[in-house]
Amino acid sequence: MPPASATPSNVRASTTVGPASAGGAPLALTMGEPAGIGGEIALKAWFARDPERLPPFFLIDDPDRLAALARRLALAVPIKAIAGPEDARGAFRSALPVLPEPLPKAVEPGRPDPANGRAVLRSIERAVELVQAGRAAAVVTNPIHKASLYRGGFAHAGHTEFLAALAKVATPPVMMLACDALRVVPVTIHVSLIESIRSLTTEAIVAKSAITAKALARDFGIRAPRLAVAGLNPHAGEGSRLGTEEETVIRPAIERLTERGIDVSGPWPPDTMFAPAARESYDAAICMYHDQALIPIKTIAFDEAVNLTLGLPFVRTSPDHGTAFDIAGRGTARPASLIAALRMAARMAAMRARVDMTSGAGAAAFTGDGI
Amino acid sequence: MPPASATPSNVRASTTVGPASAGGAPLALTMGEPAGIGGEIALKAWFARDPERLPPFFLIDDPDRLAALARRLALAVPIKAIAGPEDARGAFRSALPVLPEPLPKAVEPGRPDPANGRAVLRSIERAVELVQAGRAAAVVTNPIHKASLYRGGFAHAGHTEFLAALAKVATPPVMMLACDALRVVPVTIHVSLIESIRSLTTEAIVAKSAITAKALARDFGIRAPRLAVAGLNPHAGEGSRLGTEEETVIRPAIERLTERGIDVSGPWPPDTMFAPAARESYDAAICMYHDQALIPIKTIAFDEAVNLTLGLPFVRTSPDHGTAFDIAGRGTARPASLIAALRMAARMAAMRARVDMTSGAGAAAFTGDGI
Repeated sequence: MPPASATPSNVRASTTVGPASAGGAPLALTMGEPAGIGGEIALKAWFARDPERLPPFFLIDDPDRLAALARRLALAVPIKAIAGPEDARGAFRSALPVLPEPLPKAVEPGRPDPANGRAVLRSIERAVELVQAGRAAAVVTNPIHKASLYRGGFAHAGHTEFLAALAKVATPPVMMLACDALRVVPVTIHVSLIESIRSLTTEAIVAKSAITAKALARDFGIRAPRLAVAGLNPHAGEGSRLGTEEETVIRPAIERLTERGIDVSGPWPPDTMFAPAARESYDAAICMYHDQALIPIKTIAFDEAVNLTLGLPFVRTSPDHGTAFDIAGRGTARPASLIAALRMAARMAAMRARVDMTSGAGAAAFTGDGI
Repeated sequence: MPPASATPSNVRASTTVGPASAGGAPLALTMGEPAGIGGEIALKAWFARDPERLPPFFLIDDPDRLAALARRLALAVPIKAIAGPEDARGAFRSALPVLPEPLPKAVEPGRPDPANGRAVLRSIERAVELVQAGRAAAVVTNPIHKASLYRGGFAHAGHTEFLAALAKVATPPVMMLACDALRVVPVTIHVSLIESIRSLTTEAIVAKSAITAKALARDFGIRAPRLAVAGLNPHAGEGSRLGTEEETVIRPAIERLTERGIDVSGPWPPDTMFAPAARESYDAAICMYHDQALIPIKTIAFDEAVNLTLGLPFVRTSPDHGTAFDIAGRGTARPASLIAALRMAARMAAMRARVDMTSGAGAAAFTGDGI
């Protein structure tokens, strides 16, 4: 691992976020699965808006069910139905602004009802329409429950794929998990461990790394992003004695990325690259499988990790947890990850606007080679 | 993950270690590969003996080469050749006690010489003889370089296997990595990731878990050790949608261990089980592959993690790093992991002596079922 380099000059001055960013469009927060904890954490996040210095956001949800949920959980959160995002900023100080998306069936916590699936999807569709029209600054999504959506006719592999389809993006977007101390990108994700080894390709490493480098420049303001690529095997294969994928799959990807002018290093031994000193030497870790990426970040920042989608035409973040049916409706859900997701979405959207304005020509100018 | 339970009543009062434990046998520290950083970190550990409150230890090494190394690195460490471990405690206050094991060839940092291999092995053999004779409290090993030993006739897979052969132990010992916040045991270790999946067996999980539970009772003084077994796949297979090993290999092991009266839970999703709150709910994590165990502990405690060998008839620890040829002889090696290894060896040896005495019949009495 190269020695840590001081990087302040590499990072643009951070953009002011929160109450001080008056004037910009608010964040759109989707309903997510209403039988999960999304509504509860949205109420709690709004309640913590001042101490947490949260940027204005509005929920696309059913105002009546939210008011009932607030009563049930004894949360003093007034609900304000709004006609459009433009009303959110004014309402935000004294109430949680909600753009109405009525639910046909009463919500029972922990028991998703496919009859409400269409409204769940509409909430996402409307958030995308609003962000693409410039009426929302970014999209923050509450967790969905795919199984009940499939039964309702949902035909996508997941939340992110649905967003990509809505945005008409051909290249699959990239999932990043981020906290203050670490950013990780898994190249293979929701497949078994053996399948992640079998399906790992040089092309996928190159494609995801290139999108990551671009996003670090455009959305995080890092002028020359440094990527660290993990090995797959113990000790990164230890000279092919403990596996050969480092030489056959990973190193060729690093060479191609280097040829494209991206600052990339590796393959690094997976066990040492997430130690505090090593983390200083890169801006994002490109990981070969789900747990190689998620173990270190959840070990460091269990509550504050945010799930980001890179490669969409808009900024999208989400809390790094699921619907949590087991605790839905009890009042014990913690809003920390949603709060982090809201804050990060606002910061990224502000940075993107600033970078695009500075560069004059949008993101393409930031990569030099059209990646 | 079950809620964290307060466990003080489950853990014996910690045994006093360090200068206050006057009277017991000293720790035996082996030479390790002399072209690596072992000598340097031993000198530095002795130098820090007072602030670090280190227990008395002696090195089995070449006194002349250590004196030359101390001069070269400008470390004010007097070397005292001793005739036997019994002289170590008296010498330790004012000099680093060294039981002489002369090296036939001058040491060149970073360049291991097979001509010195026999002395490296003798240092280990003598440490084992001394601990088995009760003249040393525990064995702490400096890192070796297997390649140069193989050329010198070494016929074992590694350091631990050599120790097991010397101790005439039939059951393969178990590697544990430990720091204050976490203990992890990898079931498969130095094989490629795909081979670790293919070679994972119910039997290996049961055998390693049983040895771990026994060691937690005997060497750590935990009366009813709690083991958490990791899944192999993302989300622990998510009901077999992301892999089936949790059902076919891991769950049967958990059932067998439960039948044997061991407090074991799992399979847990690997990404969340190392978060701070989850860690409170178990005493050791049983991990399915090398990096699943090593990523979390090195992310938390890069310098202070200690490598322990469980299932030997004596306590053995070692620093959790290699020979570090790249920095050998430069004076930049950090002794933190060796210091932690020395301290943990003394604590474990003292606990084992106390537990064996209390139980009257040694370790077997602590498992109840002869595991």
